[in-house]
Formats: sequence, structure tokens, C-alpha cells
Amino acid sequence: MANGICNTLESSRMKNIAIALDAMGGDHGPKVIVPAALMVLKECAELCLILVGDSDQLRKELVIHRAQENERLVIHHASECVAMNEPPSQALRGKKDSSMRVAIDLVKQGKAQACVSAGNTGALMAIARFVLKTLPGIDRPAILAKLPTMVPDKPVRVLDLGANVDSSAEHLFQFAIMGAVLAEAVDNITAPKVGLLNIGEEEIKGNEQVKRTAQLLADNSYINYLGYVEGNVIFQGKFDVVVCDGFVGNVALKASEGVAKMVAGYMKQAFRRNLLTKLIGLCALPILKQLGRKIDVDRYNGASLLGLRGIVIKSHGSANVKAFRNAIREAIKEVNKNVPERISSKLDELLGEEAA
Amino acid sequence: MANGICNTLESSRMKNIAIALDAMGGDHGPKVIVPAALMVLKECAELCLILVGDSDQLRKELVIHRAQENERLVIHHASECVAMNEPPSQALRGKKDSSMRVAIDLVKQGKAQACVSAGNTGALMAIARFVLKTLPGIDRPAILAKLPTMVPDKPVRVLDLGANVDSSAEHLFQFAIMGAVLAEAVDNITAPKVGLLNIGEEEIKGNEQVKRTAQLLADNSYINYLGYVEGNVIFQGKFDVVVCDGFVGNVALKASEGVAKMVAGYMKQAFRRNLLTKLIGLCALPILKQLGRKIDVDRYNGASLLGLRGIVIKSHGSANVKAFRNAIREAIKEVNKNVPERISSKLDELLGEEAA
Repeated sequence: MANGICNTLESSRMKNIAIALDAMGGDHGPKVIVPAALMVLKECAELCLILVGDSDQLRKELVIHRAQENERLVIHHASECVAMNEPPSQALRGKKDSSMRVAIDLVKQGKAQACVSAGNTGALMAIARFVLKTLPGIDRPAILAKLPTMVPDKPVRVLDLGANVDSSAEHLFQFAIMGAVLAEAVDNITAPKVGLLNIGEEEIKGNEQVKRTAQLLADNSYINYLGYVEGNVIFQGKFDVVVCDGFVGNVALKASEGVAKMVAGYMKQAFRRNLLTKLIGLCALPILKQLGRKIDVDRYNGASLLGLRGIVIKSHGSANVKAFRNAIREAIKEVNKNVPERISSKLDELLGEEAA
Repeated sequence: MANGICNTLESSRMKNIAIALDAMGGDHGPKVIVPAALMVLKECAELCLILVGDSDQLRKELVIHRAQENERLVIHHASECVAMNEPPSQALRGKKDSSMRVAIDLVKQGKAQACVSAGNTGALMAIARFVLKTLPGIDRPAILAKLPTMVPDKPVRVLDLGANVDSSAEHLFQFAIMGAVLAEAVDNITAPKVGLLNIGEEEIKGNEQVKRTAQLLADNSYINYLGYVEGNVIFQGKFDVVVCDGFVGNVALKASEGVAKMVAGYMKQAFRRNLLTKLIGLCALPILKQLGRKIDVDRYNGASLLGLRGIVIKSHGSANVKAFRNAIREAIKEVNKNVPERISSKLDELLGEEAA
């Protein structure tokens, strides 16, 4: 995978990529973000990473890892930090020198081609939207994440996962375009299969917003629209992109996480019951670990904030080093494939068709 | 559990309970429903079950189980059958002698105190609503199901699971009342903890409908409202009742099922890989089965259609004998506790308070 990224990187026309990392964000801050940055730098020779945050703390963290600042690993000081539970409006208005804000500012100024943050999602979206603005033709940015499916190595992209509530049919339609462009550009999927999340597969099912969106998608020449997707079908590997309102997507994603955690918890309990079950558990551990890799959420860490005039990747707040590394890799891929520009030109093309 | 039900039954003032079973409904029809009925009849001496459906087929099924019609097991012929994928409007208007319709008619006529069906959910809701009507003060009936949580034997009740899309704050408020009354009456929970499904725990999160509902719930004297619930928290055992719109609830429930199936699928694959893993799997099987019992969906089979002037229980379409038995048990409990009347009088009481 690492090679894959670097190959793409090297074959790309953009030789020198700079990515700004909100080094203070997430549950673990520099302790996770610094070693993850060092890992990715080893993988990709043409990459520059900008660690944005408290310079003293960041320098100390570099020392721990026997590393130091250089032309490919730059510290950019920021005096403030957005708390994980801080209201987005407060982070946006009150903390103009936060590591999150400064990292996004670097993208705006063209000093970085992307920003990665494990911080407060609401604040990240609010600041990114304010600083970078949305693409022409996009009313609202959306959050897209890849989730594992029953088919190994065939993740599904789901959007929106919580940036928008009360999305209209037009918004959902824009999400579909953005998701399909991303799947095509970044994951090389030809004519990505797009589905619309609903409470049944039959045409009569659903609310007004979903029914209208279905019409818009079916009428569109670019979207390979396959119809409605029920909640359980998300994970069957039949669709490349699943579109939904952010309220629904967020609840579905978190409910899925909750169930997976419950199953894992009961499994641990069951194997811990007595000496015999513990012994069997020990034997089964490598098998269960292999299972864990199949549905590995770390592997897919790095949600995309799509629809902005710039690339912003949101890492899970509790990401470990490996997971945060994957979020940086996702940013590299999107920079390489110039996702915002592709979304923009696809929208232009579709608007042109409509006008013709 | 069986004894518990019969004890409640015997101590109740309603000595003779009759329950109408839509014997043709579900993926398996009489093959599952007849043996499930025979099982429950053995548990409860004061119970009469009415098998509604094709009498020839039902008689044949009874012969297979060496049983026959008697005063406690009555066959009520119905010439038609609602297909699992039939549009509700067609089932409602076109099939007046379907097993589903006749079973609900029996409740309306007072010949049965409840109806249990594993058939098409949309059709069941449409017919039940048309025949039985909603309770005074209830605008829309809702579907409530119990789901397992991380705390053993502490299920959570979630409603609505798909009867309604685009629910207003008033609808959600009514769902909360119905859910709390059910938890109190049927499961003997004092001051059931009620939560509202949302995309964050903070007050500012969510759509307009959720924010307004939160206000209504917080202002109410009866509801023990604990605040917003995120998707993952549903399964943590912190809440007795979780309220949501049917679109969101349906997607969350099905997504959870989808993830559980994906994990189980990968687990099977992992244990089947080679002879050694198969051997370990064989040893681990009893442990994994015990785990299965903890999160046993069969155990909680039997969703309640709440808000109607009568008791209607929806079994999962693919229910096996044990699961369908549990749906009948749920019906017995609700008859015993007279759930519709309790909901009605709670609404009267609250309206009285408001007027005072």
C-alpha cells in the first residue's frame, strides 16, 4: 500500500506535496501525530509535512523519536488548541491561532495542498468552510468515509456522515456527484455504483426528500445509479458509494460501531469465563486478529470533507499512529488526484449538459 | 421465562386470552407458526390461539406435529395471503380475506385480544391502522422493538423503526410516551430512562425536529428524559427507551444487523481457513454459541405496533419457531398489562395536567 501511494505520487505531475497536520488535534495530539508523520515521510520521498501546533511540545516529541526539523518536516507554531467538545462557533470566532485554524489557513494560502486533523469534527467543518469556501455548484460540503464490507478489500464510501442535517434532494444529489468523483479518481473505480440509503428497496418507500433524489440520480448521465440501499445492504459490498442525509448517516455509522463494540465485548467476556475458555481463546486469538484486520477501521481512517476549495481530511479522534498515518495517506492520494478540481469540472460538465 | 409469563397470566384478571396468529405470514408460514403455537399452548393453560389461514394447509401442518384442532387451538379459514413484497395499499384494498386482515379483524371484533404476524410490515401497519384505528391523542402508530445491549438482560426499546417518515416533534413526543408506558407496564421498569436519538450529545446538535422534541420531553412531568443518545450509545444499556423518527430508526437497526452479519461472516471464514483453524473453531464453538445467546435477536423477536386500539405484534419475517414463540409471548404480556388502555389513560392524564 505504501509503495502504491508513492508510485502514484512519483508518477504525478505534482512533485512536491506539502500537507499541514493539525498536530494538537484528537485525543492523543502530538504523541500520535508526530510518529505517524515520521512514518509517512519514510514512505514518500517527495513529501513535506508541516506540524502545526505548540512548537515546544512538538520539538520535545521529535526528540523522543530521535527526529528533528528539516526541510521535509517543518514545525509551524500555533498558540491555541480547539478542544474536542468546544462549540464550532467558538472555535471559529474565538481561536484564530488554533492549530486547526492555522493548518487550514496554510491550505488557503497555498503553502499546503491539504490539511489533516483528528480534532473536533464540527469545528473542523465550520473553520474549513469559512476559510476555504465551498466549490461553485456545491451548497454544502459533506463528510465521506470508507467502511469495510463483506467483500474483502471492497470498501463502500458513505456520505454525508454528519456535516448536514435536513439535506434537500439537491444536496443529496451533489453528495452523489462528489462521492462518485472521489471513488473514480482516488480508487480507480470505473462507473462507481451509487445507491441511495432508504428504508426499503421498493420505489414507494421513503420520505419525500429521498424520492426526489432518486429521480435526480436516475435522470443523470454521469451517475451509475443502482437504486435504494437498505441499512443492512451498506455492508454487502454491492455499492461503491451510498448517499444519505448527515443525520441518518451519522446515526447509522455510530450504531454500527456500537454493535461491533457490543459483540467484541461479549466475545471477550465469553472467552474469559474460566481456564478452559481462556485457553481456547488463546488458541483462537490469531484467528480473531485476522478477522479484526478484515474489518479494520484503522485501515480506512481518514474521512474526506468534500465540496470545499481545498482538501481536508478528518481522522478519528481516537486514532492510533497507524490509523493517523492512513489519514495522511488519504490526503496524499486526494492531492495527487486533485479531487476538488475534478469535482468542480464534473459539475461544470453536468451543468453544461443541462444547458445544452 | 415461560413460567413467568404464565404466572403473570394467571394472576391477571383476564383469565381467558385469545390471540389470532396470521399463520400464513413470514418467510416460512405454517411450518414455523404452527409448532410455535403448540409450544406456547403447552406453557400457558389459559390461552387460546386462533390459526388464521388456509385451513387445509393448517390441518396438514397440525397432523405433522400430531396435533389437532381443539377449543384452545382453533383454525379460522382465510382464503388469501399477503405477499412479503406486496404494496401495502394493494394488500389493504385488494385482499379482504387475507390471513393478515382476518387476524386483525378478529381483534377488532373482540374475538381475539391480540394479533401476531410475521408478514409484510408495511401491509400489517396499513391494515392494523385502517381496521383498529389509532388511540385518541395518537396521530401515528409506531413500531417498537427491543434490542440487546452491552448489559446482559437489559434490552433497550427503540421506536419508531419504520412506520413513519418525516415525524414531527409532536409525533416523537407521543412515541416517547408510548415507549415509556410499555417499558413500565410490560417490563416493570420504574421511571424508564428515555433518550432521544441524535448526532451528538450537546444541546446545539441535531435538526430542528429533534431540538423541539427535546424541549417537549424535558418539560413533561411523566417522562424521565435523560437527553440525547448517539447511535453507538443505543447499545450501552444506559437507556430503557430510545426515541427516533422511523426513517432514522429503520436505517440504524438494519445497519446494525448488517454489521453483525458481516462480523459473523468473516469469523466463519477465518475459522474455516485450514484444518488447525477448524479444530480451534470446533473448540470455540460452545463459547461463541454462548455469545450468540447474549445478543440473541430471536429472544427479543416480536416488535409492538403501538398507538392502535388493539395489540398487534410483528414478528421478524425470517423468524424460526423459537423466535415466533417469543413474539406470541410478547403479545400475551401486552394483553395481560392492557397496554393500549394504559397508553390511552396516560395521555388523558397528561392532557388533563396541561389543561389544569
